[in-house]
Amino acid sequence: MDRAEVTRKIISAKVVNKMTWKHIADRIGQSKEWTTAAMLGQMTLNAQQAGVARELFNLTDEETAWLQIVPYKGSLATQVATDPLIYRWHEIVSVYGTTIKELIHEEFGDGIMSAIDFSMDIQREADPKGDRVNVVLSGKFLPYKSY
Amino acid sequence: MDRAEVTRKIISAKVVNKMTWKHIADRIGQSKEWTTAAMLGQMTLNAQQAGVARELFNLTDEETAWLQIVPYKGSLATQVATDPLIYRWHEIVSVYGTTIKELIHEEFGDGIMSAIDFSMDIQREADPKGDRVNVVLSGKFLPYKSY
Amino acid sequence: MDRAEVTRKIISAKVVNKMTWKHIADRIGQSKEWTTAAMLGQMTLNAQQAGVARELFNLTDEETAWLQIVPYKGSLATQVATDPLIYRWHEIVSVYGTTIKELIHEEFGDGIMSAIDFSMDIQREADPKGDRVNVVLSGKFLPYKSY
Amino acid sequence: MDRAEVTRKIISAKVVNKMTWKHIADRIGQSKEWTTAAMLGQMTLNAQQAGVARELFNLTDEETAWLQIVPYKGSLATQVATDPLIYRWHEIVSVYGTTIKELIHEEFGDGIMSAIDFSMDIQREADPKGDRVNVVLSGKFLPYKSY
Amino acid sequence: MDRAEVTRKIISAKVVNKMTWKHIADRIGQSKEWTTAAMLGQMTLNAQQAGVARELFNLTDEETAWLQIVPYKGSLATQVATDPLIYRWHEIVSVYGTTIKELIHEEFGDGIMSAIDFSMDIQREADPKGDRVNVVLSGKFLPYKSY
Amino acid sequence: MDRAEVTRKIISAKVVNKMTWKHIADRIGQSKEWTTAAMLGQMTLNAQQAGVARELFNLTDEETAWLQIVPYKGSLATQVATDPLIYRWHEIVSVYGTTIKELIHEEFGDGIMSAIDFSMDIQREADPKGDRVNVVLSGKFLPYKSY
Amino acid sequence: MDRAEVTRKIISAKVVNKMTWKHIADRIGQSKEWTTAAMLGQMTLNAQQAGVARELFNLTDEETAWLQIVPYKGSLATQVATDPLIYRWHEIVSVYGTTIKELIHEEFGDGIMSAIDFSMDIQREADPKGDRVNVVLSGKFLPYKSY
Amino acid sequence: MDRAEVTRKIISAKVVNKMTWKHIADRIGQSKEWTTAAMLGQMTLNAQQAGVARELFNLTDEETAWLQIVPYKGSLATQVATDPLIYRWHEIVSVYGTTIKELIHEEFGDGIMSAIDFSMDIQREADPKGDRVNVVLSGKFLPYKSY
Amino acid sequence: MDRAEVTRKIISAKVVNKMTWKHIADRIGQSKEWTTAAMLGQMTLNAQQAGVARELFNLTDEETAWLQIVPYKGSLATQVATDPLIYRWHEIVSVYGTTIKELIHEEFGDGIMSAIDFSMDIQREADPKGDRVNVVLSGKFLPYKSY
Amino acid sequence: MDRAEVTRKIISAKVVNKMTWKHIADRIGQSKEWTTAAMLGQMTLNAQQAGVARELFNLTDEETAWLQIVPYKGSLATQVATDPLIYRWHEIVSVYGTTIKELIHEEFGDGIMSAIDFSMDIQREADPKGDRVNVVLSGKFLPYKSY
Repeated sequence: MDRAEVTRKIISAKVVNKMTWKHIADRIGQSKEWTTAAMLGQMTLNAQQAGVARELFNLTDEETAWLQIVPYKGSLATQVATDPLIYRWHEIVSVYGTTIKELIHEEFGDGIMSAIDFSMDIQREADPKGDRVNVVLSGKFLPYKSY
Repeated sequence: MDRAEVTRKIISAKVVNKMTWKHIADRIGQSKEWTTAAMLGQMTLNAQQAGVARELFNLTDEETAWLQIVPYKGSLATQVATDPLIYRWHEIVSVYGTTIKELIHEEFGDGIMSAIDFSMDIQREADPKGDRVNVVLSGKFLPYKSY
Repeated sequence: MDRAEVTRKIISAKVVNKMTWKHIADRIGQSKEWTTAAMLGQMTLNAQQAGVARELFNLTDEETAWLQIVPYKGSLATQVATDPLIYRWHEIVSVYGTTIKELIHEEFGDGIMSAIDFSMDIQREADPKGDRVNVVLSGKFLPYKSY
Repeated sequence: MDRAEVTRKIISAKVVNKMTWKHIADRIGQSKEWTTAAMLGQMTLNAQQAGVARELFNLTDEETAWLQIVPYKGSLATQVATDPLIYRWHEIVSVYGTTIKELIHEEFGDGIMSAIDFSMDIQREADPKGDRVNVVLSGKFLPYKSY
Repeated sequence: MDRAEVTRKIISAKVVNKMTWKHIADRIGQSKEWTTAAMLGQMTLNAQQAGVARELFNLTDEETAWLQIVPYKGSLATQVATDPLIYRWHEIVSVYGTTIKELIHEEFGDGIMSAIDFSMDIQREADPKGDRVNVVLSGKFLPYKSY
Repeated sequence: MDRAEVTRKIISAKVVNKMTWKHIADRIGQSKEWTTAAMLGQMTLNAQQAGVARELFNLTDEETAWLQIVPYKGSLATQVATDPLIYRWHEIVSVYGTTIKELIHEEFGDGIMSAIDFSMDIQREADPKGDRVNVVLSGKFLPYKSY
Repeated sequence: MDRAEVTRKIISAKVVNKMTWKHIADRIGQSKEWTTAAMLGQMTLNAQQAGVARELFNLTDEETAWLQIVPYKGSLATQVATDPLIYRWHEIVSVYGTTIKELIHEEFGDGIMSAIDFSMDIQREADPKGDRVNVVLSGKFLPYKSY
Repeated sequence: MDRAEVTRKIISAKVVNKMTWKHIADRIGQSKEWTTAAMLGQMTLNAQQAGVARELFNLTDEETAWLQIVPYKGSLATQVATDPLIYRWHEIVSVYGTTIKELIHEEFGDGIMSAIDFSMDIQREADPKGDRVNVVLSGKFLPYKSY
Repeated sequence: MDRAEVTRKIISAKVVNKMTWKHIADRIGQSKEWTTAAMLGQMTLNAQQAGVARELFNLTDEETAWLQIVPYKGSLATQVATDPLIYRWHEIVSVYGTTIKELIHEEFGDGIMSAIDFSMDIQREADPKGDRVNVVLSGKFLPYKSY
Repeated sequence: MDRAEVTRKIISAKVVNKMTWKHIADRIGQSKEWTTAAMLGQMTLNAQQAGVARELFNLTDEETAWLQIVPYKGSLATQVATDPLIYRWHEIVSVYGTTIKELIHEEFGDGIMSAIDFSMDIQREADPKGDRVNVVLSGKFLPYKSY
């Protein structure tokens, strides 16, 4: 058994029982963004959170233990995106990647925007010309230093 | 001559003259995000915007004409990111890609978040534990329909 | 269980029972193009359509539920096409891709032809020198805008 | 000198002189689709067509000779598409590729749709909800035979 | 079940029963080249041919049905050849590919040699310095035309 | 200077002077297949053959010396074929590769068909339904032996 | 069943019964180099050799039959070596590949060193500064000829 | 200037002046194998050896300095071998790689054969059935140890 | 059965029984670094160490035998790292690789730092600004020599 | 002009003038590790450091300006390492990558070792059995947090 099998079991249970991520997140007690990532095998749950997941998805002792082990991360099965929604994100990085780099360096100097000390918030933005997806990404700036 | 050569000339001029993207954007009259992408060869300028760029970077007639031609987009020289700042964005898509997909579908149904009818805003977020980079991405939701 | 398993079951049932896609599409009540894509795991069915599929292919409750979940899209098993029919389409993009880009931009300006707000129609075109395959692709033009 | 250099010279001349592909096609006396592909280095011109190109783009003797040599085809510089417009076509093949294969085989049996005995027509389709790009692809069906 | 499983069953039966492809081809009533390709999952059998295969390899109803379905073609498990015999063919294309292209164009003009309207014949050629493999490939020439 | 530069010079001279490979082969005194491969940088010329090439293409001393050096072989610029004519040959190996392997082993046992002790002959084959390209490949069989 | 499964069974039996390749080669009656390659699925056994393998590894009729079928060769599971011992051999080819090519051509002219008419011998070479691995590779020289 | 330019200059000089590697090695005072690798940019020369190279190839001060700088090693321009002679060496590793690994471990236990503390000797081996290339590779065995 | 299956069993047992690598290493009697690598299938255990592992993880005879067989090394499932922690190490090699090469050559001359005669030590380094990971890598320098 | 050109100029000057990295670092006033990385185009210099570099390498105004611009990082020209010294580092990550991950998580929980808030120290470690390269890597631990 490994974490990927637990992930597959969670997704299957969610489809059969027609649960939403929002409902699961409310039960876990964290944001829907972090909770979905955790359930999809990208984050580590603590004992209390794993206990809630156990009830929600009817997990065994070993499956519950796996949720508390740091996972091997990377949620995409293939290197080259074939799913149109996920591809659009690669396209954003492809088209705007150098722009993001230039503007962060202009504001902060040499360094990076952390993907670890990081949070994300996804919201519907009502718009008469068609609703929009609004995504806010917040990452700590980490500077390079000389030594 | 092609657009890439014009881009290289613009970047060289910016380094030598120590200009900022913010200053260039103010002169062009658009956001710093769109302007930087345009100067880096990802967007098409209209005649008036190209005229401003001509002055700023001391461009020739042919170089100014190229700025008004729709470019072949894709700002990254290599497929696999080696720059640490740009890699963090690939990592965000790798770790959170399936989360983003699940949550957009939960809210909107089948479809995508557009990377064309799209805008981006990058800001410094002051934080006592270390300032953060705050990026807002806004893309129109486009639904799949049956026919 | 995942959507790919449901797809394999549908294809197997179609082979054994010698059904045609046209017949299946008539039962589902959509075009043969959309229906085939949906059955091959690329589109999301609504409850009524999934109910018809259930009867046609003798699906279980869980399999029927999966048909109504937005799938991870991308119908080709490998990145590099080995099937001669599918390769010809990659060849069309390879040989005519820049032509298509130039002519759409000449007519519409900077933007793309949508692959989401999109439909396709495949017909036999009788021809004394050998019948032809006639494919009509229709996609909404989405313009880039400055901001 | 090779064909790619001639192509670059033609594109440069077109940008500087603000010509359209439609105008060039009228002068060459073929469709805008074939003519654009030919000018972009994908088709072979005959002596008369090459003579027109010579005048239009102010070509030398050697450059005019190259236009009449069968080119090494493939118009895209990189294997993985980074340009959003061209990528959408790869996405169409990725999502609908198996659908196209199934429906052509259902209608014609085993064989392919030719990309050689092939023509293409790109038109604007007016639509109150936003104009559409309409692309018609016509390729001869070539059957596999046993021997 | 899919076509690949039927192929594996046929190959296993052939090994256990020590049959030759020549014998199988005689029973099917086609050349050994076409028959071997068909049995290896690259060609579509008609009902009568599939009936013979059924007897030869003791196939079920469903397996016999799969032989009459147009297969996804491509007989090699990996993109990069590791088998020395198959690699020599890639080497022939690598070393002589441009030669073949030049000589076909010199004789026929722009176009291709069809791999669909195609046949192959493999024979032993006795030679005192060591017997040779003699392979004849015959493909219809398909010209590009302007439109 | 390297061999690739000599090849480019030879090709340029051939285009400008409208020579044919057949004519060049007659002057070199070898088959058109071997001669074309040699001129395209795949074979080594002896001093007499290099002397003829020198006259034909107006080569310098150093260029003539390079023709007599064993070249780094491999005539295709990219690993993945984009040219439709050359791709058809990859397709033949992809679809018929396992068939070729099976039939050679059935006739000869374990071993390979040499691509070194090898010759090729390309001819037009008149056919009322459209002329065909006829290619004969002849390679010595080399057996694996135990030791 | 295929040859790979037989290979796995042979390796498993060897581990459980703590046999050495030298012992197996003595029983088969060939060198340890050829025998190991054969047992690892790279060479074809004759009936007598397969009979010995049957006894040694307790094989079934079908497994014994597979050992006498010409295998699809290539012993490495992945294209890019991750095993340090095997990587050193790729490194030898990477660093010394051009040297080997130059020196063989200097001695023999244009052609190759055969990997088919080939044998290998691996011995321990005692050395006070640390024992060495001594590998002798012997391959027939095959010349390219013009035709 | 970098080492690759010096290598190109040395190779050009060798072609123009029709030198052999054996002659160059005699002058340098090392084996022909090490000397060729060094001249092809894979090894570092000492001051005395670089001085000989300077005379032989008429090098400048800076070029002579580069020969004494440790180079970035890897003599092959592309990852995938297209040259038939070099490919045969990849094939040896592909077919015999696991055999080599098994036999070295059987003799020495866990560890590797060094490609650094390594030497190579290439000789012609006369043989009435056709001369052979004989290559001896000698590398120190380096054991893994626990700690 | 192969070594990878034994590795999976060991990891599963460790998760279920909530053991630490430090505890396992104390029982095995080696460093935590070597022991973890060995348990993850990268090192070879001797009979005594394998006996301890047998008890700890409740292994069978065959599983215990596999631990004493030299493994095929390479602990990462995919070539391109998707796990953020492991990626940071690829980034260190990408950003500092040439620096490491330059400084080792400056100190030692041409040669390498061994990854075989190698040890590693990982420690927590307390730091008021946030604790640090301190990794010491020690590898024997192996010089290239001429011959 | 771009940063890569400045890097090439610096390296050339260092070879011609036989400078050491240690000497350059002393002049710049930082560690030899950081200074070498900076000179190789991986770090950003401040105005004072750039001024020292200007003198040392005789740089122009524009070249000095480029040293103060945040570079696109990634010091290796190719994705797949061919240099033996650099490859050993990829091998360390390949063999020990999962070990490093397990031990950092065991000590610190979920998170990463930073490659930005990072320093490196390379020293010779005298050893009677052959001197060793000792590398100390120190990176801040950054924890994942739920939100």
